[in-house]
Amino acid sequence: MIPILSIIGKSNSGKTTLVEKLIHELRQRGYRVATIKHNRHGFDIDHEGKDSWRHKQAGAKMTVIASPAKVAVVEDIDRDYTIEELVGRFIHDVDIVLVEGFKKNTLPKIEVFRKELNRELISIGDNSLIAVAGNYDIDIDVPCFDRNDAKDIADFIEEQVLKGMES
Amino acid sequence: MIPILSIIGKSNSGKTTLVEKLIHELRQRGYRVATIKHNRHGFDIDHEGKDSWRHKQAGAKMTVIASPAKVAVVEDIDRDYTIEELVGRFIHDVDIVLVEGFKKNTLPKIEVFRKELNRELISIGDNSLIAVAGNYDIDIDVPCFDRNDAKDIADFIEEQVLKGMES
Repeated sequence: MIPILSIIGKSNSGKTTLVEKLIHELRQRGYRVATIKHNRHGFDIDHEGKDSWRHKQAGAKMTVIASPAKVAVVEDIDRDYTIEELVGRFIHDVDIVLVEGFKKNTLPKIEVFRKELNRELISIGDNSLIAVAGNYDIDIDVPCFDRNDAKDIADFIEEQVLKGMES
Repeated sequence: MIPILSIIGKSNSGKTTLVEKLIHELRQRGYRVATIKHNRHGFDIDHEGKDSWRHKQAGAKMTVIASPAKVAVVEDIDRDYTIEELVGRFIHDVDIVLVEGFKKNTLPKIEVFRKELNRELISIGDNSLIAVAGNYDIDIDVPCFDRNDAKDIADFIEEQVLKGMES
């Protein structure tokens, strides 16, 4: 089972910036990272007019775009998959999965917090919260990190999520 | 084993237009169609600045974008996969796969031909050529279709590729 860590927080709290920094930091430490981004309202991908876009647009249930260094797949599904289903179906050969954009889940999670945006954590009372990455110290019984300090947060992830899973 | 049909032809011969028409026609007949597009020189996908784009750009080996109706995966690979490998790994729950952009393969193939572009077929002497879709009748021992006549070509595909595989 690949370790999964959910990054949550309000819009504009800086989730994607933290994910970027963590990917960079974890990669430097030799970990292979996968990410999952959930978009409740759907998403666009691929570029209008490209052959692969035209295939999908014409009604292909699934389109694969392949090259020597990269593969992409765009496929229709009939319902929202859980994180575990997405990992089981699409993710392989990585050491950790960072997920962003899922509202409710019981996976280990870090909340990104900006004092300007909310008075309290959205994950208050959530037992799966393992840390806060904020711009302000919060009175809570999990570690609070500076949300710009990816090194400290990556140390914590190594300790709590990566090494925890190995044992 | 899912039936696979390769659509080949010179640049600008109309391969993608034919693939679009065949997807539409085969879907109307109740078939679920997948496509594979090969880009020898790599490809761009996703839109600059989007969260999923940022994840991949930051160094994620693999990024999944999920919504209730559609999933996309963008992943790094270490070599060019064969069509059969791509089908085995990424394609499922469809009735036929149309592939475009692979230079050499021994799969059943239809060549799209425009007299203005080439004097002879690129697949001349290729035993896996099963038909030509052109704007001109060619003296060759496989059926020649009008490349705009997706209905006739789809009839032929049903007969030769889809029903052939079932038996």
